[in-house]
Amino acid sequence: MKLPQYLLTLLLMLNVTAQAQEITKLNLPVPSTVSKEMQPLIAAEPFSYWNSHPKTPEQWKSWVNELAQFELQILPGIQQKFAVTIEQSQLANVNVFTITPKEIAPNNQERLLLHFHGGGYVLNPGKAGLSEAVMMAGYGQIKVISVDYRMPPDFPYPAAIDDAIAVYQELIKTHPTQKLGVFGTSTGGGMSLILALRASAEGLPLPAAIAAGTPWTDLTKTGDSYFTHEGIDNVLVSYDGWLGDAAQLYANGHDLTDPYLSPVYGNVKHFPPTLLITATRDLFLSNTIRMHWTLKQAEIPTDLIVFEGLSHAQYLMSLEAPENQQYFKELSQFFDKYLEY
Amino acid sequence: MKLPQYLLTLLLMLNVTAQAQEITKLNLPVPSTVSKEMQPLIAAEPFSYWNSHPKTPEQWKSWVNELAQFELQILPGIQQKFAVTIEQSQLANVNVFTITPKEIAPNNQERLLLHFHGGGYVLNPGKAGLSEAVMMAGYGQIKVISVDYRMPPDFPYPAAIDDAIAVYQELIKTHPTQKLGVFGTSTGGGMSLILALRASAEGLPLPAAIAAGTPWTDLTKTGDSYFTHEGIDNVLVSYDGWLGDAAQLYANGHDLTDPYLSPVYGNVKHFPPTLLITATRDLFLSNTIRMHWTLKQAEIPTDLIVFEGLSHAQYLMSLEAPENQQYFKELSQFFDKYLEY
Repeated sequence: MKLPQYLLTLLLMLNVTAQAQEITKLNLPVPSTVSKEMQPLIAAEPFSYWNSHPKTPEQWKSWVNELAQFELQILPGIQQKFAVTIEQSQLANVNVFTITPKEIAPNNQERLLLHFHGGGYVLNPGKAGLSEAVMMAGYGQIKVISVDYRMPPDFPYPAAIDDAIAVYQELIKTHPTQKLGVFGTSTGGGMSLILALRASAEGLPLPAAIAAGTPWTDLTKTGDSYFTHEGIDNVLVSYDGWLGDAAQLYANGHDLTDPYLSPVYGNVKHFPPTLLITATRDLFLSNTIRMHWTLKQAEIPTDLIVFEGLSHAQYLMSLEAPENQQYFKELSQFFDKYLEY
Repeated sequence: MKLPQYLLTLLLMLNVTAQAQEITKLNLPVPSTVSKEMQPLIAAEPFSYWNSHPKTPEQWKSWVNELAQFELQILPGIQQKFAVTIEQSQLANVNVFTITPKEIAPNNQERLLLHFHGGGYVLNPGKAGLSEAVMMAGYGQIKVISVDYRMPPDFPYPAAIDDAIAVYQELIKTHPTQKLGVFGTSTGGGMSLILALRASAEGLPLPAAIAAGTPWTDLTKTGDSYFTHEGIDNVLVSYDGWLGDAAQLYANGHDLTDPYLSPVYGNVKHFPPTLLITATRDLFLSNTIRMHWTLKQAEIPTDLIVFEGLSHAQYLMSLEAPENQQYFKELSQFFDKYLEY
């Protein structure tokens, strides 16, 4: 018997390797305004690993591996639900996974989505980064290529975004950008935005649309919700846990306000239509809405959606919840509107 | 010498008639990501009157009058800045104010905006409710009619919304709805939405567009940000101050989940395009984004904007701040897009 995803997530939250927690738990009621399926995740204690602080490269790798096991455990259930195939290959010498749904929707026959996984530039290597891409391919009935970009400690900045742009350049040799969308959550959302900044700066054609779920747009601890939502968000909990460490590890001495690290500071004037999604408890609420303002001020068509009651990226964490389905419905409608077919 | 609006607001915050405060002040830094002009308002202690609990009709009237004096004190400065005229008259036996800018923009010659002021259905009688309408007329170069609807304790529900619909019915006898927009903040945003619900139910043509700033869409303490943002928002601070009392006083025994009290529960299927605006510290963040979902699920064109770092309706509280100007720019662009001319 397969356990539902939310139960597995709860098990992870209760992980016995949990670090001491320094954030006082707030006595917040579970909102009645979210789905029953989401309520246990919102009621849960903060993710046990939020305050991990690996020091050495070996500690980072061991920690990343521990969390990857969890993701690898839930992937088969998700893949089975959507009956997608996953093929591994290389594009421009970068490891990628092509996810193909059993049936591709008529309008999506020639469309393609490029995906970047989340995880603070450190988590979710290999197949551990595929759950969002699989859900998108399944819900959206569209082919998705997910990039298994290189990560620190072995490969700090700019390896990840170099891999992203290399795959993009290779793809657009054969695939018209008018039929190509880019998406991802958290770091994957940030990378989707940075890809467009780099493509723009390098004179490449831009993708037809970008969907960034709760994107990491400012790697410094800047933006109001890093402070107001500390301890309210039970997924990330605080910048001062593993997250801030990951920013430093990835940046490897580079200025964190460089737009290729923090795209909220970038020049977005050539951007395609961009969808941004966050939630009321999200530590990245400000990361998301500040990017929305950056795009609005450049007069880029941009839509903002805020989920009720959820913490960071929690819409991905229960396959059983309507919020999960809603997220992918929003992305599907958005890409359907802006991608040629 | 006239004091700038934000200084007057700060003086109000330090009001010596302040009630005892039961909410622990959170130690939140002032965000660097808001304008310098807004920072003093964000840094300020919670509004002194948030925890007022008038009991008798006389106490309510005295409290309302005290706060109205503040609004009346700042109105001349705002009126002077925008060089608008304010005329008082009656429409359908309801007191209204017509605000006319010195110059009406070419596209706005035949357009009209209908405004409802905020204040929890109890505050801002008469000219005390005009600051937002004056700013809109001035920034937008458009004629605005603001409704001085009746309020409790003398006139509880449905007096306010009866007045709103009576004025609307009278107006649309001579003014085409295609050239008519409706807007307001907080209770005024809620009333703008309820007006559309009532117009729809009564078979009247709907206005061409609605802009609701941080609308009070749920008069019960339902919605996550009533809890997560308690004490983070320094304007409303908590539902359990005067706000919840005002809900009871206004509803006067009616079910608070009636859509004409809490429009988030309404049937919005005939709604025109609707703009919703909130902010990251707003106690009404959930009120706003839940309404956004209600509209999205009915497939109504709707835009959501979230201000960084602001508390409830704080965009109205500093005429000197770019956020103030930005709010009215957003409304102007929105109405310009959807109103015929």
